[in-house]
Amino acid sequence: MNASRVSIENISPLIDCGRFPAKRVIGDEFTVEADIFTHGSDKIRADLKYRKVGDMKWKASQMHLGYNDKWTGSFTVEQEGIYEYTIEAWIDTYSTVLGNIESWYRGGESISGDLAVVSTLLSGIMKKTAGREKSFVNERFTAMKNASPSEVIEILKGPELSSLVQKYQKKLYPETYRQNLRLVVERKKAGFASWYELFPRSQGAKPGISGTFLDCVRRLPDIAAMGFDVLYLTPIHPIGVTQRRGKNGARVADGTDPGSPWAIGNADGGHDSINPDLGTMEEFVDLIRKAAGYGIEIALDLAFQCSPDHPYVTQHPDWFYKRPDGTIRYAENPPKKYYDIFPLNFDSPDKENLWLELKRVVIFWAEKGVRIFRVDNPHTKPFEFWEWIIREVRAEYPDVIFLAEAFTRPAVMYELSKLGFSMSYTYFTWRNYDFEIREYFTELSSPPVSDHFRPMLFTNTPDILPPILQTGGRAAFKIRAVLAATLSPLWGIYSGFELCENEAVENSEEYLNSEKYEIKVRDWNSEGNIKQLIATLNSIRRDNISLQEFGNVHFHQSDNPNIIFYSRVSADRKNAILVAVNLNPKELHSANLKVPLDLLGVNGDTPFKIMDLLTGELYVWQGMYGYVRLTPDQRMAHVFRVEG
Amino acid sequence: MNASRVSIENISPLIDCGRFPAKRVIGDEFTVEADIFTHGSDKIRADLKYRKVGDMKWKASQMHLGYNDKWTGSFTVEQEGIYEYTIEAWIDTYSTVLGNIESWYRGGESISGDLAVVSTLLSGIMKKTAGREKSFVNERFTAMKNASPSEVIEILKGPELSSLVQKYQKKLYPETYRQNLRLVVERKKAGFASWYELFPRSQGAKPGISGTFLDCVRRLPDIAAMGFDVLYLTPIHPIGVTQRRGKNGARVADGTDPGSPWAIGNADGGHDSINPDLGTMEEFVDLIRKAAGYGIEIALDLAFQCSPDHPYVTQHPDWFYKRPDGTIRYAENPPKKYYDIFPLNFDSPDKENLWLELKRVVIFWAEKGVRIFRVDNPHTKPFEFWEWIIREVRAEYPDVIFLAEAFTRPAVMYELSKLGFSMSYTYFTWRNYDFEIREYFTELSSPPVSDHFRPMLFTNTPDILPPILQTGGRAAFKIRAVLAATLSPLWGIYSGFELCENEAVENSEEYLNSEKYEIKVRDWNSEGNIKQLIATLNSIRRDNISLQEFGNVHFHQSDNPNIIFYSRVSADRKNAILVAVNLNPKELHSANLKVPLDLLGVNGDTPFKIMDLLTGELYVWQGMYGYVRLTPDQRMAHVFRVEG
Repeated sequence: MNASRVSIENISPLIDCGRFPAKRVIGDEFTVEADIFTHGSDKIRADLKYRKVGDMKWKASQMHLGYNDKWTGSFTVEQEGIYEYTIEAWIDTYSTVLGNIESWYRGGESISGDLAVVSTLLSGIMKKTAGREKSFVNERFTAMKNASPSEVIEILKGPELSSLVQKYQKKLYPETYRQNLRLVVERKKAGFASWYELFPRSQGAKPGISGTFLDCVRRLPDIAAMGFDVLYLTPIHPIGVTQRRGKNGARVADGTDPGSPWAIGNADGGHDSINPDLGTMEEFVDLIRKAAGYGIEIALDLAFQCSPDHPYVTQHPDWFYKRPDGTIRYAENPPKKYYDIFPLNFDSPDKENLWLELKRVVIFWAEKGVRIFRVDNPHTKPFEFWEWIIREVRAEYPDVIFLAEAFTRPAVMYELSKLGFSMSYTYFTWRNYDFEIREYFTELSSPPVSDHFRPMLFTNTPDILPPILQTGGRAAFKIRAVLAATLSPLWGIYSGFELCENEAVENSEEYLNSEKYEIKVRDWNSEGNIKQLIATLNSIRRDNISLQEFGNVHFHQSDNPNIIFYSRVSADRKNAILVAVNLNPKELHSANLKVPLDLLGVNGDTPFKIMDLLTGELYVWQGMYGYVRLTPDQRMAHVFRVEG
Repeated sequence: MNASRVSIENISPLIDCGRFPAKRVIGDEFTVEADIFTHGSDKIRADLKYRKVGDMKWKASQMHLGYNDKWTGSFTVEQEGIYEYTIEAWIDTYSTVLGNIESWYRGGESISGDLAVVSTLLSGIMKKTAGREKSFVNERFTAMKNASPSEVIEILKGPELSSLVQKYQKKLYPETYRQNLRLVVERKKAGFASWYELFPRSQGAKPGISGTFLDCVRRLPDIAAMGFDVLYLTPIHPIGVTQRRGKNGARVADGTDPGSPWAIGNADGGHDSINPDLGTMEEFVDLIRKAAGYGIEIALDLAFQCSPDHPYVTQHPDWFYKRPDGTIRYAENPPKKYYDIFPLNFDSPDKENLWLELKRVVIFWAEKGVRIFRVDNPHTKPFEFWEWIIREVRAEYPDVIFLAEAFTRPAVMYELSKLGFSMSYTYFTWRNYDFEIREYFTELSSPPVSDHFRPMLFTNTPDILPPILQTGGRAAFKIRAVLAATLSPLWGIYSGFELCENEAVENSEEYLNSEKYEIKVRDWNSEGNIKQLIATLNSIRRDNISLQEFGNVHFHQSDNPNIIFYSRVSADRKNAILVAVNLNPKELHSANLKVPLDLLGVNGDTPFKIMDLLTGELYVWQGMYGYVRLTPDQRMAHVFRVEG
């Protein structure tokens, strides 16, 4: 404990006191704030210092004083990888003396003694200069000779002279923040993407016959037309036969059941193999290439668990949990037992080889061209494993993105995010009422969470058909699509959502006749689909940068709890979106909304135009309140852009 | 960055990531919270560990899991000085296995294999036991042999067996929080006190003649009757003659003006001398002794600045700021120039001797028996000086209390508190409206501020006669007294407040004919005084421990902004105070107040009694709302205690 002359406290971003890094994507302006102050009335200057980890040299960006000792600085992150940042602050002798002189002068006191101090200071500066700079200082000296005190003060305050002084003046009591903090920069897609999830085997046209990668290729135009840019495939590996589950998860399968793709591994291979029903490795690589032609990137599932038939089970029995009687334990989530799945024992005595093998699997797919992984249940594996494998993989492929599919307590979900996952599933599917949405997204949109946690909002998943979609009809699907697409830069749907599929197993969130256990064939253009809305939402997201940034969701007052109202304003303030959604899929509702005039930079006395980007209609609002009337299904939401 | 098996994050209290200590007073229950969690579903145990700095051995207090991974533990601080605390957490193998077994069993699965695991575990425990413990485990083993699985589970969950297992079980993956955090414990008076400030020279009875320490002794019964337990004397040192100020701060004094006591030092001596007009050192020491007899402790002023006649000026000219022409600078607050005061240059080339001399001054008075110092303008001196001198003084006198008289920006005031001041002046005098009071005291009552910053609420000071007291009449004095006495465990008045003195220099907060520049004689029992109210307030404070604790001010809804409503509930929940104050000294107001039933532990369906401690009247309230009607002056506030 040693107090410093210049104190630098309350720095932000700061995650667990610097134990974990903040996150940004390439192109972001990274803004750092801190309380910086000293005793008395001396003037301070401060630099935000930053560099890529490994670089010797720091870059500096001047910080600026706002209100009550709060200083702000920023820089633009231009490269993938790890940056470090810190703050240096010091007493600015010249400005301190000059400020005092000005005060004394205005107070009617003699300043001749103080001016002599400044002269000495300037002479010292002049000695360090040469050429044009030297003659400039000299010229200012001459000008001061015949000037009145007030003119001298103006000369001393001149911006050119001041910046010359700052260049050469010795920093007085320079103080550097006690830590170098870290910032992980990923590529843009880690922070802005629209995901589409499908089962490759359900992309065919013949009932009971597995679809293939070729069928997936045929689906690409449809997926691209909806505006998705990530195509996430459920596991593509060989599926276990022993204890295979039947339709609707039946304990016993019949001979024709294809099994759950998450029961990975059989005689055909394990995590680095492809289920022959889907096609060949070449066809998979071709799918990656063809998807790229549509601007779509392929994401794979990393489910680190094994069917009883996985090659690991015989090759590495010590990678699994064993009971005292020597039998292998099933999955670890009591009282659920997944008989078709053996969990891996990450604390196995042979853990080093297990961990290296799992890393090999990820690198194997990265080499094939996969750079996005959706990680199944990471919260059931040790934190240190994830921290290790993410670091190891990124050392070879810095552009790899990891999505954490963890549905568990907040502290655990946040920990996975902090230790390296690019993005995470959320509780979004279970947040339906206005107060729930406000509370949850205010938390996600506030530091420190917003500095590291990137929420991926799936409207549905193969495991989650939420009650609102089961009972709310087509209107509910539209409502949830608008919310997901506008509450986070990351959203996604699991295929079938666009067709408003909503049949569930009774009293459960499981789909009836779930694709997890059978092959599905669908009419992808069936009546009542909402593909056009989805396409419009993705197009709005592409055109409006405020929807591509984190931490800018702000909720505003609505006098009807059925209608939620929030804004997204870009950091550069050039793009502002206002979203009003009728959360009730059954009833028409209207509301008076309190417009965040300050946030929009709009004057309460001046009319301003807003365009509903869902319909192209233009409205004119004025003053503090706006009125909306929203009908389920037909017009369940406005997504306004503030114009001009 | 290395994730751990057991994560310990978000620990509280935590001030600037552990750079500064939390504060408590002797007898406090110190409660520590943290998020503690691991992956998967393993069970955790955690200990709060603590010790006095210098002790080798840690003590441990078991922590308990609340909601969402939040664990809480506590210990009682019993000694003055510095403690350190940290958290150790680990996987509890026994509870983990036992929990799984219970789940499997309820899920209808076979648990025989798992029971074998527990048997092995218990056998291991038994080997570590002897005597009574060994036979107990053995007896349990026997009982299990003939028991059904459900009976076995009940035996394993038995609290005696469980605590035996915890005693001997090896901690799995033990993890200690990455820092030892610190806690400064002071004596009770650092956290709970009522101050009375006076000018000793104004305690006499003859106009124009300086009062003395003997006169102060004669005032003691009156001050004690009002319930004050700290008597703070403005500086008692010789006063400078050169540039001495006259009445109302006039630039030039006449021969009879006594000068400002803050212009310290003349031919009679400096900071370690007594102004002969006040008496002798022996009489001062006698005042300390006599005051103690009334339960009153004497506090002195530490104003580290000098009159031009101070001995330091000639003995140590290099301890002062000099202009290029060699003359000494006046006080440093442009455009104000205090011609009667030279500031000290804490960065003097001879700074080591200056700092040591100032430390000598404090020790000098501590030796005389003074253990409370009110420090004048600490924010104009370097932070590192205060950190140093407070540490040095406490090394010799651990019971010394320092009050920071800093009125400046929040970050600077908080920094002084963090680096060692026991308590601090606040913005209280300028917070009059309900929203101002709510906002400010919510900040002061919330971590991290409430963990280190002890707000001393002076209703007035020799420099501050706030507008509300100038214009609000006697009612305003009562209102401000109730607020100060019930919004913080630390409050004080500057003498004259009890007489409702309210004449100010026009357009200023300065008292007209301020005691700073002249000797005053008062009738301490003049008509209209509010001494009885003050005595009642101090008595209420002594009798109700909720008013002696920090961080427990909570504001509640009032439907009239003129009436503010807040509660103070003690940590042990045994003492609950509700305060309603009419903030408007001119008008009668009534309000419906929303009673914090949850906080009070009161059922909405049951009537409960409250007693107004100001009047002794008993009321019965029921349900969520209570009604009050408050008249200025006569009944401007209720201070209710919830009974039973």
